[in-house]
Amino acid sequence: MALLYKADPVRGERWQALFAEQAPDIEWRAWPDIGDPHDVRYLAAWQAPENLDSLLPNLQVLFALSAGVDQLDLGRLPQSLPVVRLLDPGITKGMCEYASFAVLGLHRDMLRYRQQQAEKCWQAHRLVPAHQRRVGVLGLGLQARQILTTLRPYGFALSGWARSLHHIPGVDCFAGPDQLPVFLGQCDILLCALPLTEQTQGILDRELFQQLPKGAALINMGRGGHLVEEDLLEALDSGQLSAAVLDVLQQEPAGPDHPFWQHPKILLTPHIAAMTQPESAFSVLLENIRRHQRGEPMLGQIDRKQGY
Amino acid sequence: MALLYKADPVRGERWQALFAEQAPDIEWRAWPDIGDPHDVRYLAAWQAPENLDSLLPNLQVLFALSAGVDQLDLGRLPQSLPVVRLLDPGITKGMCEYASFAVLGLHRDMLRYRQQQAEKCWQAHRLVPAHQRRVGVLGLGLQARQILTTLRPYGFALSGWARSLHHIPGVDCFAGPDQLPVFLGQCDILLCALPLTEQTQGILDRELFQQLPKGAALINMGRGGHLVEEDLLEALDSGQLSAAVLDVLQQEPAGPDHPFWQHPKILLTPHIAAMTQPESAFSVLLENIRRHQRGEPMLGQIDRKQGY
Repeated sequence: MALLYKADPVRGERWQALFAEQAPDIEWRAWPDIGDPHDVRYLAAWQAPENLDSLLPNLQVLFALSAGVDQLDLGRLPQSLPVVRLLDPGITKGMCEYASFAVLGLHRDMLRYRQQQAEKCWQAHRLVPAHQRRVGVLGLGLQARQILTTLRPYGFALSGWARSLHHIPGVDCFAGPDQLPVFLGQCDILLCALPLTEQTQGILDRELFQQLPKGAALINMGRGGHLVEEDLLEALDSGQLSAAVLDVLQQEPAGPDHPFWQHPKILLTPHIAAMTQPESAFSVLLENIRRHQRGEPMLGQIDRKQGY
Repeated sequence: MALLYKADPVRGERWQALFAEQAPDIEWRAWPDIGDPHDVRYLAAWQAPENLDSLLPNLQVLFALSAGVDQLDLGRLPQSLPVVRLLDPGITKGMCEYASFAVLGLHRDMLRYRQQQAEKCWQAHRLVPAHQRRVGVLGLGLQARQILTTLRPYGFALSGWARSLHHIPGVDCFAGPDQLPVFLGQCDILLCALPLTEQTQGILDRELFQQLPKGAALINMGRGGHLVEEDLLEALDSGQLSAAVLDVLQQEPAGPDHPFWQHPKILLTPHIAAMTQPESAFSVLLENIRRHQRGEPMLGQIDRKQGY
């Protein structure tokens, strides 16, 4: 019985060492050295190979090595194959650090101060108290909820929106398309932490920006596919939005001509909000393998119809 | 009985409205319209006027409109005059927001990513887990302790140093000159939140930087006088320090030739970490006036010998 790993080879060595030490009953194989494909019961991958059905006839579970699974093209995978996303606490911590940095930075006008430093301008601006700053999170999954918990001690006025209604202490929760405009109308800082699906593709567009209060700021920690990039440029130019912090783009890495690189109102980071850490992710993955072996439900299994 | 206000006139109007509404028994006067100087019992000021003794013969308390009082030149004030600093919760919140932003930014390599954005370079760097990042705070006064409390949920390895020994849950506390080298030797990120006194003037110098681990980062939220600016440049050039976030300078505003403006390893902000907010500061000031009127000890009274 073997597990096939298909992702970054450097991190793969750390994964392999952890399996050798703590789960020697599971044989480690690293792509492309599949060995006898009949042995492979588990695939741990960032992206799945083509023709999974014929390539790994005895495959029982696909473990995505990421929190989101939009990169997997679920429609092309065998329909009965369970797909499990990685609920790595290391990823969640990274997301919370990045979200706090981005929200505090926008709250405290740090893109304006970045520009002032470049222009050698020493000028203070009015400080808005946190309780007057309304921070809204699009998406209320595990990470979004943890981000809200991390932001709470600062005293921001917090809200969240998701397809279905949630109840989170200290957070005004909105649900469904009907309540989206009301939610947006009260967001000074909007943070996107949605999964990427057909429904959320391009959700951060001109129409959405116009429903935000004038001068609102945007953080995209979801996927590049959530954002219509030319609409963001237009909203920043018109002043409808004041600033944006982006960790993801439609095309990564960005080409040298991408207009976001040198935009004074955009802070762009190279998809670093969170990275899977083998040390913290390993125990989560192993726990799911053991659950599968015992016939118990796995944590983070994807609803193939909803796509997340 | 009157209170004389001597600070920013725009904020003064907000102070005046609060006094008129909530403490009409205290007559408001704004510098330079002193009126009959014999009426003035309280002075609320950023900097004190010359010859306070003869100017305001019946002055009973000087309320500094700031958390630190180094700008007051205590030696030139009447020795028996109580001086009270402003323990505005708005200032403390601002300091905590700025400290979190700066620590998270340095923790997550954001000065390097700022530079990469300017150079159109899309490259991720290894993410150090928070529990492996050692954050040390110089000074353990009210604000420093609140900063440590704010940082705790992120899971950093926290420590603090002060002249006398403190006990703070979850924080390794060091005390006195003897323990300073040990404290410094374990700080990946050093945050200065000291008061400025004769003892702490120039404390952030070459000798101190050399006791930090190579590649450590510095945050100065104290006063410009804490930092020997040319020593910082040398430490950044040699790689002994990797980055610095500075909210204060020796000379503010910085002149156009100041080398910090365009230094890629320095984030410079124009003394905005915290600002006194009349709304939150008013109740603190009024409480101290009432305490004084009742003959009770005031909160934040300066020890004239220690200077803070």
